[in-house]
Amino acid sequence: MSGQKRRPPIVGRYLRQEVELASRNSGMPLEALRYDLTPAGLHYLLIHFDIPEVDAFAWRLRVGGLVSRELSLSLDELRRMRARTVRVTLECAGNGRGQASPRYPSMPWLEEGVSTAEWTGVPLSAVLNEAGLEKSARDIVFHGADRGFDGGIEHTYSRSLKVPDAMREEVLLVYAMNGAPLLPQHGAPLRLVVPGWYGMASVKWLERIEVIDTAFDGVQQALSYHFRQAAGEKGVPCTKIRVNSLMVPPGIPDFFGRRRTVEAGDVEIFGRAWSGDGDVKRVEFAVDGAWQDATLDAPAGPYAWRGWRSRWRAAVGAHELRCRATDASGAVQPLEPPWDVTGFGNNGAQRVEVVVR
Amino acid sequence: MSGQKRRPPIVGRYLRQEVELASRNSGMPLEALRYDLTPAGLHYLLIHFDIPEVDAFAWRLRVGGLVSRELSLSLDELRRMRARTVRVTLECAGNGRGQASPRYPSMPWLEEGVSTAEWTGVPLSAVLNEAGLEKSARDIVFHGADRGFDGGIEHTYSRSLKVPDAMREEVLLVYAMNGAPLLPQHGAPLRLVVPGWYGMASVKWLERIEVIDTAFDGVQQALSYHFRQAAGEKGVPCTKIRVNSLMVPPGIPDFFGRRRTVEAGDVEIFGRAWSGDGDVKRVEFAVDGAWQDATLDAPAGPYAWRGWRSRWRAAVGAHELRCRATDASGAVQPLEPPWDVTGFGNNGAQRVEVVVR
Repeated sequence: MSGQKRRPPIVGRYLRQEVELASRNSGMPLEALRYDLTPAGLHYLLIHFDIPEVDAFAWRLRVGGLVSRELSLSLDELRRMRARTVRVTLECAGNGRGQASPRYPSMPWLEEGVSTAEWTGVPLSAVLNEAGLEKSARDIVFHGADRGFDGGIEHTYSRSLKVPDAMREEVLLVYAMNGAPLLPQHGAPLRLVVPGWYGMASVKWLERIEVIDTAFDGVQQALSYHFRQAAGEKGVPCTKIRVNSLMVPPGIPDFFGRRRTVEAGDVEIFGRAWSGDGDVKRVEFAVDGAWQDATLDAPAGPYAWRGWRSRWRAAVGAHELRCRATDASGAVQPLEPPWDVTGFGNNGAQRVEVVVR
Repeated sequence: MSGQKRRPPIVGRYLRQEVELASRNSGMPLEALRYDLTPAGLHYLLIHFDIPEVDAFAWRLRVGGLVSRELSLSLDELRRMRARTVRVTLECAGNGRGQASPRYPSMPWLEEGVSTAEWTGVPLSAVLNEAGLEKSARDIVFHGADRGFDGGIEHTYSRSLKVPDAMREEVLLVYAMNGAPLLPQHGAPLRLVVPGWYGMASVKWLERIEVIDTAFDGVQQALSYHFRQAAGEKGVPCTKIRVNSLMVPPGIPDFFGRRRTVEAGDVEIFGRAWSGDGDVKRVEFAVDGAWQDATLDAPAGPYAWRGWRSRWRAAVGAHELRCRATDASGAVQPLEPPWDVTGFGNNGAQRVEVVVR
């Protein structure tokens, strides 16, 4: 941790650096919860450095380290392998950070760092089996082409998975998104997608897979992306997505401040709920603190968000709408943001302020 | 103006409402200046209200008011008309607002509210000619499906063009972008594109065209989108895009603060320059205040940005890089942001701080 320059927590207004990050990294506008699959260009993006320029024709995926056979695969070779498509809800581990107070100065997601897509690619396990993992293999390291500084340390964006996590059949080396070639900003020509885990695991612009017999100690693995109650703690790595839910804010917005105005009468509330730790089993919806069960849509797969809806007889006046989900593990969203020093894993129940007229 | 609730200017840190807008409205990361056509999902977006849900099959474009024949056109009928494709650089009139101090609290674009696409659609003039404008026609009003509050007034997003501006042959009713069907967030199923003008003129989610014999007094036409030296002035309407330019920041960034690190030696600087008021005739590049002419790429059409490049022998140390363009009208970018109460038309020359090692 000694190399990590920590930033002090702040309260109140946002720094220019936070606005720079929010301007570069797009969120999914909440009305796009209406789409089962988030359309191209509405899927959230968290790009740590710059979008690298990769020549897909010259590009090769290199696989090395503790393997029986080093590999160097072209995109065509990967495309000729058995493909699999998985519908996956990805969420940024820092989603909701910008709502906490005090907050860690970083990408100030309010709640829009989540989206769902169908990802098509080769199971990672197939490539690792072709290379042949040696017995001593412990971590599989994924190196992206994107390079820069974070926490005062220069590095490429690299993350690792332990062998059993890497060998899960739904972990993919992805070259297509929603049936179309992967876009530059989503990691073209090839990216990792780790269903059920926060987005930081799904390394974009993948260039090299390295098999090692130690715990990978790269910045993004060992320093960033840990839950910590206090600065300087070792912390607990961010892995699976915590149970979470959002609703499409009803009515019409004000341009500045996004306050909602709703017509009195019956209003259908629609939203999505998701969890990396088991199916969503229950969603509750509250008006002014009175909770009721919402109706769940059919599940859309083990790694995709699940639709939910609730009817609300809207009465004239100001109201606060909230929702919270429960997953199969029994985890329930907290009503207030859970504390984390760097603002990871905020699954506090959404609040939507509306005025009914 | 009496209905407009003005917000007082602020300095320093950014409001939560500004961050909400930056999270919803994506900018083009500056490294995407490398693409002649901005790929889907990297084109900037300014969405005043919510992305409306439009059923493209039930949708009709209605044309009415002071016309000989009212029209109601389906998307298929529009697609069967003679199509035209135009390469257009669009820029948000508020681009650069977030850099000014004091600044107007609104979408806090720093510099990323600009992009280029090829738009395909029917010339507006063809539809207006089919409807037949009456002699008294003065303004053509374009009504979008998106509705909300701005300045305390509820309205759909609506803008107008005077007849001669509307009849320009390159003004299009657009259903495709970069050869693909228009995406929801870009105005599907149909939008207006007004080449050469700031983006506010290119009304998205178009539903109705209305021909009137007065000056349209809608919020977005008569109150918003005016250059004003002081609050309360009538002001000058925003129309053509002012001459502007940007470079791809060289080197690698820091995640937080985006400061750039560059290797010493020869560096090629690449950027784009554009103007709504005539071709770009000159681009200059400066290192630490020493200006030199950049090399211009071939023009890419009368409404598209033009590439430029410059070589820089980078010496170890901290440097400030800048660029500025001049257009055929003789207009030159100012070195400092021009003053405007609500932060429109900021074409002050870009600054990129780098450390060479």
